[in-house]
Amino acid sequence: MISIILIEPQFEGNVGAIARSMKNFGFSRLILVNPKCEIGQEMRNRAKHANDVIDKIKILKNMPKMDFLIGTTSKTGNDYNIPRNPITPKELSEIIPTSGKIGIVFGRESDGLTNKEISKCDFVVKIPVSETYPSMNLSHAVTLILYELSQFNKINQNKITPISLNEKKQLMKMIKESLTHLEFKNEDKKKTQILVWKKIIGKSFLSKREAYALMGFFKKLIS
Amino acid sequence: MISIILIEPQFEGNVGAIARSMKNFGFSRLILVNPKCEIGQEMRNRAKHANDVIDKIKILKNMPKMDFLIGTTSKTGNDYNIPRNPITPKELSEIIPTSGKIGIVFGRESDGLTNKEISKCDFVVKIPVSETYPSMNLSHAVTLILYELSQFNKINQNKITPISLNEKKQLMKMIKESLTHLEFKNEDKKKTQILVWKKIIGKSFLSKREAYALMGFFKKLIS
Repeated sequence: MISIILIEPQFEGNVGAIARSMKNFGFSRLILVNPKCEIGQEMRNRAKHANDVIDKIKILKNMPKMDFLIGTTSKTGNDYNIPRNPITPKELSEIIPTSGKIGIVFGRESDGLTNKEISKCDFVVKIPVSETYPSMNLSHAVTLILYELSQFNKINQNKITPISLNEKKQLMKMIKESLTHLEFKNEDKKKTQILVWKKIIGKSFLSKREAYALMGFFKKLIS
Repeated sequence: MISIILIEPQFEGNVGAIARSMKNFGFSRLILVNPKCEIGQEMRNRAKHANDVIDKIKILKNMPKMDFLIGTTSKTGNDYNIPRNPITPKELSEIIPTSGKIGIVFGRESDGLTNKEISKCDFVVKIPVSETYPSMNLSHAVTLILYELSQFNKINQNKITPISLNEKKQLMKMIKESLTHLEFKNEDKKKTQILVWKKIIGKSFLSKREAYALMGFFKKLIS
């Protein structure tokens, strides 16, 4: 189940346009975190025949916890900015599981997601845009991601049970213990290790089966 | 040279949003045929940093003649309505030539292109949308087509350096050594481990930077 999560959206029109696109591509779960706009007439006008999506909007104060949170960014991190090392929308559509609670997180119209918000995500997606002018309209960015996801859903149905949030935490705990066990003493290096492992666990959309195999590996390592 | 041709666009905001998307994906030629809106402040506001695209808009009374005119439609023609037998945006990106004058033609916000206008096109493209609600916002439809075309042109590459085949092999070699080191003696379990690790390395689309961090981990493990 995929939810679209908008962090502090500013403009009613954008939210309405996003609701319309969601219905165009067969999505219906829209979550607004701490919205800076009302759910008003402009939103409903722009949503056109997708007012059912507007009616079901969930408003939250903080980013919800889900099995997978996937951030979006228009900023090109360099190789060393690991949390911002992105995959493409197409790659996302190829690896995203069809079950589990999945949230795709979009930042503010003005300046996207903060580093802190991105650190809460498993990994990030970046739409390949021109470097001359990389900043896309929010509803356009959402539309492109939904388009890629719907493309894949039609062709391909993953029947694999994905790792749950709890299992992910358990796995990360074992990885951290492994780092201690392997005596990663330099704090920076240890931090990088944790970042990289977190991203890999997120990006590879582990199945439950794969997760348990990994746990077997790390259990051996730390015992 | 690809031009975006809008037939009788009604809303300034849409044209502005389209100009912005064009610049996002590296396009600059925008033609309005018999527009029903002005080139005013709202258009310029929505175009944001793409006012150079607005400045160069060509306004025509009739659809121009070009080497290729490609129509767009949201209506599913049946097999017998040959002019409306569409291809997908992805297919378009695979076959579109890289030279010649090419126009991609979009109809009115309200009801698209007429049959007569479609008959002037070489063929039509249809974005695969939900049958429940197929009518997309005009600027969203344009954005999706430009996205697919730019994908193919590969003007826009992620700047993250991905892991190479050799590095992937090197990493797998280290993982196998780790399994021996951790004394995975049961051959079946060892095989499963190798399979799972290989999948994870593949599925997570590792960057070079991430790959080297992992190598650091396994190096410590086997040393």
